[in-house]
Amino acid sequence: MRTPHGTVNTPAFMPVGTKGTVKGLTPGDLRSVGAGVVLGNTYHLYLRPGPKLVRETGGLHAFTGWDGPMLTDSGGYQVFSLAKTRRISEEGVEFASVYDGSLHTFTPELVTKVQEDLGADIAMVLDECPPASASREYHAESLRRTARWAGRCKEAHGRWDQALFGIVQGGLYPDLREESLGRTVEIGFPGYAVGGLSVGESRDDMLNTLSLTAPMLPADRPRYFMGIGDPIGILKVIGLGVDMFDCVLPTRLARHGAALTTDGRINLRNARHRRDLGRLDPECPCEACTGYSRAYLAHLVREDELLGHRLITLHNVRFTVELCRRAREEILAGDYEGWSQAWISRYSGAAA
Amino acid sequence: MRTPHGTVNTPAFMPVGTKGTVKGLTPGDLRSVGAGVVLGNTYHLYLRPGPKLVRETGGLHAFTGWDGPMLTDSGGYQVFSLAKTRRISEEGVEFASVYDGSLHTFTPELVTKVQEDLGADIAMVLDECPPASASREYHAESLRRTARWAGRCKEAHGRWDQALFGIVQGGLYPDLREESLGRTVEIGFPGYAVGGLSVGESRDDMLNTLSLTAPMLPADRPRYFMGIGDPIGILKVIGLGVDMFDCVLPTRLARHGAALTTDGRINLRNARHRRDLGRLDPECPCEACTGYSRAYLAHLVREDELLGHRLITLHNVRFTVELCRRAREEILAGDYEGWSQAWISRYSGAAA
Repeated sequence: MRTPHGTVNTPAFMPVGTKGTVKGLTPGDLRSVGAGVVLGNTYHLYLRPGPKLVRETGGLHAFTGWDGPMLTDSGGYQVFSLAKTRRISEEGVEFASVYDGSLHTFTPELVTKVQEDLGADIAMVLDECPPASASREYHAESLRRTARWAGRCKEAHGRWDQALFGIVQGGLYPDLREESLGRTVEIGFPGYAVGGLSVGESRDDMLNTLSLTAPMLPADRPRYFMGIGDPIGILKVIGLGVDMFDCVLPTRLARHGAALTTDGRINLRNARHRRDLGRLDPECPCEACTGYSRAYLAHLVREDELLGHRLITLHNVRFTVELCRRAREEILAGDYEGWSQAWISRYSGAAA
Repeated sequence: MRTPHGTVNTPAFMPVGTKGTVKGLTPGDLRSVGAGVVLGNTYHLYLRPGPKLVRETGGLHAFTGWDGPMLTDSGGYQVFSLAKTRRISEEGVEFASVYDGSLHTFTPELVTKVQEDLGADIAMVLDECPPASASREYHAESLRRTARWAGRCKEAHGRWDQALFGIVQGGLYPDLREESLGRTVEIGFPGYAVGGLSVGESRDDMLNTLSLTAPMLPADRPRYFMGIGDPIGILKVIGLGVDMFDCVLPTRLARHGAALTTDGRINLRNARHRRDLGRLDPECPCEACTGYSRAYLAHLVREDELLGHRLITLHNVRFTVELCRRAREEILAGDYEGWSQAWISRYSGAAA
């Protein structure tokens, strides 16, 4: 995938820099672990520090110092997951800020303009992301409004150096997914996301729905699955033809002391790591794995030290990015399924 | 000053790695800013993760990955500043852990053994650090006990690859300082610290007492002033002949969003930095100053982001270390007083 800030090899995991920073990591750290695309959250950046300030400083690339490809979400997901107060109309969605309760309205036009100010390489249309538990009727009504919003976003979008992606909704209903996909593809976008999954439904429901939706997406456009970041989930969705995905999981786990390793996820707060002089993951060449023992990392985690958050975040992001790089190799080599099953089996077999 | 882990150019600021980590910085970061000696706190490391574990992992150097010179304090200062409960006797001092209230006793022999387990290049004797407000009688009694403890520490100390420094006490009383110094020098140590200052007395009282004490210390041994880290204070104590000093100030300020610059200390929470596209300190070549605008750093500070703590900590430590390097140049060039006065005048002239 080519962007104004560089070419991205897919499949690609996109680390999330919610507020214009991937928790504790510098752009140099992100480059050192091979990150291809970094994601920024429109909801948070709109509220703080505001798109005007970001634009004045030269856009999100100049502001944050990350000069590689970037993607901003539309803020839709956060409006629906964070806000206690919200009111949806044809015009857009009114919500109360998670910071100070102040009222704001996201319209397709505003969200498009905000993302143009932020200036990422890829922007997303405003969508509604209903909970998995919403009724069939609600999902049907919602996906049609989301399609109308998508059309308005495309209409409002004017930056030639920014791609605007559409989003497919429709809950767990195959026919609604098909309808949403048809309406979105009819509008026409350079890339498509599958939204509204990984929002509380079972893993099987998620994969079943994705496996019906993904093959219908245009084969020559990037396919973005929103919100998956655990290693097994990543390998499963890659197997279903997904090119891009994002999730806060690797960075959030790190702040809780959990690290991803080839032999499974471990929690460094666990007593058995206290005196372990071995490496975090002997197969990983990152700074955390080559410079320190598990005992030291466990000490940092227990003491809630910044360096612990930073080192384990660096490792988890590197681990996830590297998993995607390996997946690409195996896809090109022609035995992705065999490799990914073996990988999952080793990862799942280890005690936590 | 030569140590088993390298030669230290003096005067030298020693960044404090309280729990075996300088908040947010890796050993590589510390090397990149030119840090010479890193300090570890015996009090904290004794309680967590414990000297036995550190010894098992190969000592503080191997445990933390810092392979340059290290110094551990004796824990005395923390016992007297942190503990709500403590009981002093000739034998030692009993105190309640700041973590869980559990009772522990530090004796000169134990503190020496703990520091041998930690394995820093320089260890300190156990001292009592009375508050500035304590009576003359108390200070006199205390300094004599501290001298007896120093003798017991020297007696107990057996590591040939570790230097044990003595500590001069005596409050703000010139004759008590002289008595403490005489008793400590009589025991004989390869280096001497001035303790019990920078504990609440006025800056003038501190400098007056130091100016009387410093000239009496042996000229051929390193002189360590405990607990100063602001730029002006550092230049003043260097002017009085001090070789080494430590303080958490540069790292603690950073966590509150305050940064040191050639034109004075600034607080990045201040509204005027929000849209400032300039560098933090245009004269500083560190990662924070060359990679980001004040506007971005101010955003990180306001959002309490890990990266903000890390970048400003890196800058403040680099700034302080660099100040000492410049001081050394000026001392060797022969016009330290003129230079330091001009430096202080520029630093003080700027608005905060």
